[in-house]
Amino acid sequence: MIGIFPLAAIDEVRPGDDLPALLTAALAAAGLVPAEGDVLVVTSKIVSKAEGRFVDLASVTPGEQARELAAVTRKDPRLVELVLAESQNVVRAVPHVLITRHRSGHVMANAGIDRSNLGGGDGEQALLLPLDADASAAALHVALAQRHAVPPAIVISDSFGRPWRYGVVNVAIGVAGLPALIDRRGELDRDGRLLEVTQVAMGDMIATAAGLATGEGAEGVPAALVRGVALPEEHRPAADLVRPLAEDLFR
Amino acid sequence: MIGIFPLAAIDEVRPGDDLPALLTAALAAAGLVPAEGDVLVVTSKIVSKAEGRFVDLASVTPGEQARELAAVTRKDPRLVELVLAESQNVVRAVPHVLITRHRSGHVMANAGIDRSNLGGGDGEQALLLPLDADASAAALHVALAQRHAVPPAIVISDSFGRPWRYGVVNVAIGVAGLPALIDRRGELDRDGRLLEVTQVAMGDMIATAAGLATGEGAEGVPAALVRGVALPEEHRPAADLVRPLAEDLFR
Repeated sequence: MIGIFPLAAIDEVRPGDDLPALLTAALAAAGLVPAEGDVLVVTSKIVSKAEGRFVDLASVTPGEQARELAAVTRKDPRLVELVLAESQNVVRAVPHVLITRHRSGHVMANAGIDRSNLGGGDGEQALLLPLDADASAAALHVALAQRHAVPPAIVISDSFGRPWRYGVVNVAIGVAGLPALIDRRGELDRDGRLLEVTQVAMGDMIATAAGLATGEGAEGVPAALVRGVALPEEHRPAADLVRPLAEDLFR
Repeated sequence: MIGIFPLAAIDEVRPGDDLPALLTAALAAAGLVPAEGDVLVVTSKIVSKAEGRFVDLASVTPGEQARELAAVTRKDPRLVELVLAESQNVVRAVPHVLITRHRSGHVMANAGIDRSNLGGGDGEQALLLPLDADASAAALHVALAQRHAVPPAIVISDSFGRPWRYGVVNVAIGVAGLPALIDRRGELDRDGRLLEVTQVAMGDMIATAAGLATGEGAEGVPAALVRGVALPEEHRPAADLVRPLAEDLFR
């Protein structure tokens, strides 16, 4: 049996807050002691907030490319400027849609820049993704190892749209202590045939499952503990989930 | 807390088998009595098997388009013929990759046709997706209502690749008794701003979460019960997850 426990007891996170301490307190408030195989899924929003990744839109001056793309996408030119600064390249720009390849390689809408639930309300703040979500996950993993006998693996999640399907799902943009991608090439099925499905996006699956408990942020549940998943003893970061540009079927 | 319970006590499913009876027995074997809000996630493979969706590849004569695409994709021309017969149109064909829009509208590799764990072993069998997975889910939902005081909602899952990310995840191709897509347009966040994330792929999220318990089929866990997800009182089929061709960003 797999259990997903929401960790709701986390107040508004502010720049410089000690996230490992907040998560440890939230685990304790939920009566949870991390055990072997546990995965702590943390929404990117509170990681970004703790890292102080806020930008005041009033401080942003859009360049020419941003102004052009803003006209195409009908988005705020200052937001588009931030998206471009956070991205390697633009994948798709049509009305109301701006998809780019983020610095990290992940392809997503608006470079993951968030304007909801920022704890302000003046509407002029934007929140960028963590500087390096795999590094943030690794740092959290190390910090939690100092507080717990058995530190949970870490997944930092964000919600992504999909090209052929409506609706967002949560995926992993930072992973530490578990294999974000599991490679089963060479394994056989029960009939002795080579498996057709050879790579499993374990990091994304855990992020999505936790999303059932955290929701999309409006509910204010910023983390969840996932317990009972059978995980191989292997560590692979979320960067391993990124299909590189050379293999992008749609460029 | 959300619980995901694997339902492993299901023998090899054969054409004509009474799937509601098998699932009811598996729930009982796991000590589970369906309760309000439960979702029974069933892998498409056993639904297809019960529906007798097997095809003997030796009976398939590939046409000209299949032979051409087989050369491009380096796949068995008979399999490609089956894929084309199950599809509306070809989305992408490159070496080792054949992505089409299935009859149902879902975009996936090889029209979901399966050659693993078919319980045979001669390698000449293929298993098509259920004829109409939303209808299969609805029929299961009705049949389980005759066996349980509180029938679980139904998700029929399959594993899909993603264009920009490595690895497969499970998604929903059939849904009954819950909203496959939740529309939150018009809702406000905690600061009173309109939510940026406005549609949530609840059916896919539940399918993915259950995938943590069922795996990719090689383990032979064909179903799972998901308990404790907060679900609106609304029914929307998996067809509502399909982004229509007119909105396809990549055509």
